[in-house]
Amino acid sequence: MSHQESLTVYLAAFVAELAHSGITDVVVSPGSRSTPMALVMAEHPDLNVHIHVDERSAAFFALGIAKVTNRPVAILCTSGTAAANYFPAIVEAHYARVPLLVLTADRPHELREIGAPQAIDQMHLYGHHVKWFAEMAPPEKSEEIIRYARTVGSRAIAIAANVPAGPVHLNFPFREPLIPLLDDNLFKITERPKGYVKVQNGDLTISEKAFGQIAERLKGKERGIIVCGNIADEQFASSVTRLSERLNFPILADPLSQLRSGKHETDNIIDTYDTFLRNEDAKFFLKPDVIIRFGAIPVSKALTIFIKENPNADHYIIDGGGGWRDPAVLSTDMIFCEETIFCDKLVSQLNDNSASGYLHDWQQLNALTKENMTRVEELTELSEGKLFYQLAEMLPEGATLFVGNSMPIRDLDSFFLNNEKNIKVMANRGANGIDGTVSTALGAALYSKSLYLVLGDLTFFHDLNGLVAAKKFHIDIHIILVNNNGGGIFSFLPQAGHPKHFELLFGTPLDIEFEHAVRMFNGQFTKIMDWNHLRIELEKSRVSKGINVYEVATNRDRNRDEHREFWQSVSQEISNFVKDERR
Amino acid sequence: MSHQESLTVYLAAFVAELAHSGITDVVVSPGSRSTPMALVMAEHPDLNVHIHVDERSAAFFALGIAKVTNRPVAILCTSGTAAANYFPAIVEAHYARVPLLVLTADRPHELREIGAPQAIDQMHLYGHHVKWFAEMAPPEKSEEIIRYARTVGSRAIAIAANVPAGPVHLNFPFREPLIPLLDDNLFKITERPKGYVKVQNGDLTISEKAFGQIAERLKGKERGIIVCGNIADEQFASSVTRLSERLNFPILADPLSQLRSGKHETDNIIDTYDTFLRNEDAKFFLKPDVIIRFGAIPVSKALTIFIKENPNADHYIIDGGGGWRDPAVLSTDMIFCEETIFCDKLVSQLNDNSASGYLHDWQQLNALTKENMTRVEELTELSEGKLFYQLAEMLPEGATLFVGNSMPIRDLDSFFLNNEKNIKVMANRGANGIDGTVSTALGAALYSKSLYLVLGDLTFFHDLNGLVAAKKFHIDIHIILVNNNGGGIFSFLPQAGHPKHFELLFGTPLDIEFEHAVRMFNGQFTKIMDWNHLRIELEKSRVSKGINVYEVATNRDRNRDEHREFWQSVSQEISNFVKDERR
Repeated sequence: MSHQESLTVYLAAFVAELAHSGITDVVVSPGSRSTPMALVMAEHPDLNVHIHVDERSAAFFALGIAKVTNRPVAILCTSGTAAANYFPAIVEAHYARVPLLVLTADRPHELREIGAPQAIDQMHLYGHHVKWFAEMAPPEKSEEIIRYARTVGSRAIAIAANVPAGPVHLNFPFREPLIPLLDDNLFKITERPKGYVKVQNGDLTISEKAFGQIAERLKGKERGIIVCGNIADEQFASSVTRLSERLNFPILADPLSQLRSGKHETDNIIDTYDTFLRNEDAKFFLKPDVIIRFGAIPVSKALTIFIKENPNADHYIIDGGGGWRDPAVLSTDMIFCEETIFCDKLVSQLNDNSASGYLHDWQQLNALTKENMTRVEELTELSEGKLFYQLAEMLPEGATLFVGNSMPIRDLDSFFLNNEKNIKVMANRGANGIDGTVSTALGAALYSKSLYLVLGDLTFFHDLNGLVAAKKFHIDIHIILVNNNGGGIFSFLPQAGHPKHFELLFGTPLDIEFEHAVRMFNGQFTKIMDWNHLRIELEKSRVSKGINVYEVATNRDRNRDEHREFWQSVSQEISNFVKDERR
Repeated sequence: MSHQESLTVYLAAFVAELAHSGITDVVVSPGSRSTPMALVMAEHPDLNVHIHVDERSAAFFALGIAKVTNRPVAILCTSGTAAANYFPAIVEAHYARVPLLVLTADRPHELREIGAPQAIDQMHLYGHHVKWFAEMAPPEKSEEIIRYARTVGSRAIAIAANVPAGPVHLNFPFREPLIPLLDDNLFKITERPKGYVKVQNGDLTISEKAFGQIAERLKGKERGIIVCGNIADEQFASSVTRLSERLNFPILADPLSQLRSGKHETDNIIDTYDTFLRNEDAKFFLKPDVIIRFGAIPVSKALTIFIKENPNADHYIIDGGGGWRDPAVLSTDMIFCEETIFCDKLVSQLNDNSASGYLHDWQQLNALTKENMTRVEELTELSEGKLFYQLAEMLPEGATLFVGNSMPIRDLDSFFLNNEKNIKVMANRGANGIDGTVSTALGAALYSKSLYLVLGDLTFFHDLNGLVAAKKFHIDIHIILVNNNGGGIFSFLPQAGHPKHFELLFGTPLDIEFEHAVRMFNGQFTKIMDWNHLRIELEKSRVSKGINVYEVATNRDRNRDEHREFWQSVSQEISNFVKDERR
């Protein structure tokens, strides 16, 4: 039996099983060693093959597709440093719990660790940051090995998708010649042609009895809060809202909880806590006895400090991924249960708590803070806070809003408030990096109606290469580039108090005209002159195609001052209000 | 004792020891967690601190500095995916044997693996691709911990520099507040102020007796060749030349052996083997009994096949780094000895071999092939082969030539011939990636008189971000961009025989006007019209500053045809010559 025949049958079985198991998209970076897999994938009628030269961007692009579709996405590259370029996106996928199937081509065993070109040690290349690593058997046509290839394909996808989702790495040793035998019968598999193994992934849940005990402990509790961090499940919003109503607990809704936008009940949703929890009087006034937390750690530092300052509260953390998301190390109850199931089952065992003044207190402080947001609204010059304050209004119904890390995600948290539009909010919050943001957003845009990416200049710069995907795959994206020429967040940190090396180490201005980069990728670049201009441009954006970059130039020092002035003035009002209430 | 005092003294001791141990350059990427180390480094009078936003480019930039200076270079970044972006350059440094000191800031132990923002598992983050990993002790001011900090600093650099050189990773847990106490006495260290530990790294060598045995075995051997791959040691050229003269063996000099340029004796140097060893008659005619190999695997596939086809030769591999660089798995003698020492000691034990016809045969075939290079020289249209053929002449004395992987390094091998200029030739041949090339070249350019980088469009694109270093640090670089709009090398591989998915998976045209990118970084972009234009521009380049990009547009198909026609016509002449000789 020929080498090429073995290679072909083995890979056809593997690739067919990927498609059977739900893979629809593969992102391939060009290379020689990966040739047989790339060619077999390109032949498969049900796989969308996206070619992306820069493996770092390619992996983030796949991450974006996986995040928005909730389907595992495969990435394929050649041997050597190509595979090392995947690492940042793999780390992000691991912590953000996004399913990725990482396929690396490798030299065969006899060419490893003996100085052969482009051969590196790819065993366990990504260390603890993948859920499973397997060194694949060399291609062979025996029935056993074909079954093995199909089973590993199915299994790898199942492991990637099972809770907590994450990346899986398969390493393939390929010998030359690397050309498979492509013909019309490539995927005509006789044994179990509709897929080899079907896997049913389960959800974590706890017993009815355990729910009863939690319900019992919550009975009659008045001073409780529900904290919702990043959660992707679209069912969760209505379930947690019902739980909040039953308990009469406010929901502190992180912007990534998907609770600030949409048509669910919003009476109990608190969206300005990041502002008023900076005030000591408010924090004292609102001390909780119960904290119920869902999802990832919230973006708001004010909120995490508030949680930390209440060590005596009953502190339930519900995690359907079985993690340990408790940097405050204060949980009293760690509950490994799928979040929507938890809400629904608990609601079924709870009677209505009687209305409490505590919920009302949260609602009043929230309302007061919102009134004060007019101070942000009234800013005439281009400002980072006001940008996010206006976004909900300016974005079209059904938009996806992807937000960069560092300042944008924090401004989103502070200023992007409840609205009735269906706006999906996304960010890379696994490891909070500024890398790969453009590519992740473009991956998401591939399967979104209209995607708006808001990010800073350093984040945009870090993944400029990623823009090539928009050009090559004709993806429409609207990028609001908040250009403060450097690292805006550092102006808010203690580093800013030490001017000696500040601009060198932290300010780090790039002094770049991004218009050139945008034009390189055939995009439209618009320098926003004022708020009215932005409004008009975003109105026009609803029909515009391709890459559209709207640069909003701001000033780091002025931005810091605006934020501080706003927080201080609100804080004064909050203190006055609390004093009145407690009198 | 205050936390800040501990942090400060601990880091001052560590950083002072780095400077004492020979670190002159540190490349820092902005971040919050790494603040204390960055500030202490910026205070040190003997450290050049380079700020580079994109950690992937930053690490390659450091690699370039380390390669050209032969000194370890430190890189510093914050926690999270920032550190993962270092991975490609670390892998390259590992296989290319370049000393790097990788310093990552991390959350302290109590904030790890519990969902804290920007916290990832950084233990052994780079797996087997670093020589040493240490999780550092938390900062403390005790005498013991200060001595520890100094010792680890010295030791890490020594390990990075010791044979085989490579990367070392230290991970630092830092608690908030992250601001050290900077004052004029920061580095006033009382105990051993001129450095704590001085390390003397040794060279591998074998016994006099062993040299005697090798000399004995080589006595009277006529049909031997010396193969020199990538070697950085500047002393090596004259030593190996003496060995070649003593043995009467030709030297097959890889372009990265530093033997093709310079003022050493060149009679025995064969520089066109990549062309004539494609011919079966030549390979049969030149069968060796002895192969002595130094340095990394040569670029030339024709040469590696030739070596593989001579399994009965005595095959000595000399490796001062104690590696196992033998993908042909044919070595009879693996000798772990520093290469220059090996040549000098062996020469001292050898008598002159008598002149042999075998050396003359190599010289004749080399001369014949060179005569045929006129076919390349006569090409009127812009051509990739001719570009490298002309480079030696066009480059100024003392230039550094940095060459991209894939096609450029192969064309360099085929067409860049012996010359008497001092031209240092560099490339990233640890793992042969197309990533990080711009940044590595810029790092090298920082310490080179005039650096010329020749690379393809995909390689240029992969590390476009790297150009920002030239702008920020005012580095002069001349970039000859061979733009064939895609992956030129694949046209030479079997993939090209399968047109169905060829352009999608392998051709991968980007269709980008790079002029925009160059202008973004304030560079000069020149579209080369013809050979005369190139000559004029390179003449002008001797005085031009900043980023200068000369785009040489070529055509992938025509390029392949030109190469094939050249090799075929030379091959014919070679066959005729060999037949005449053997008659």
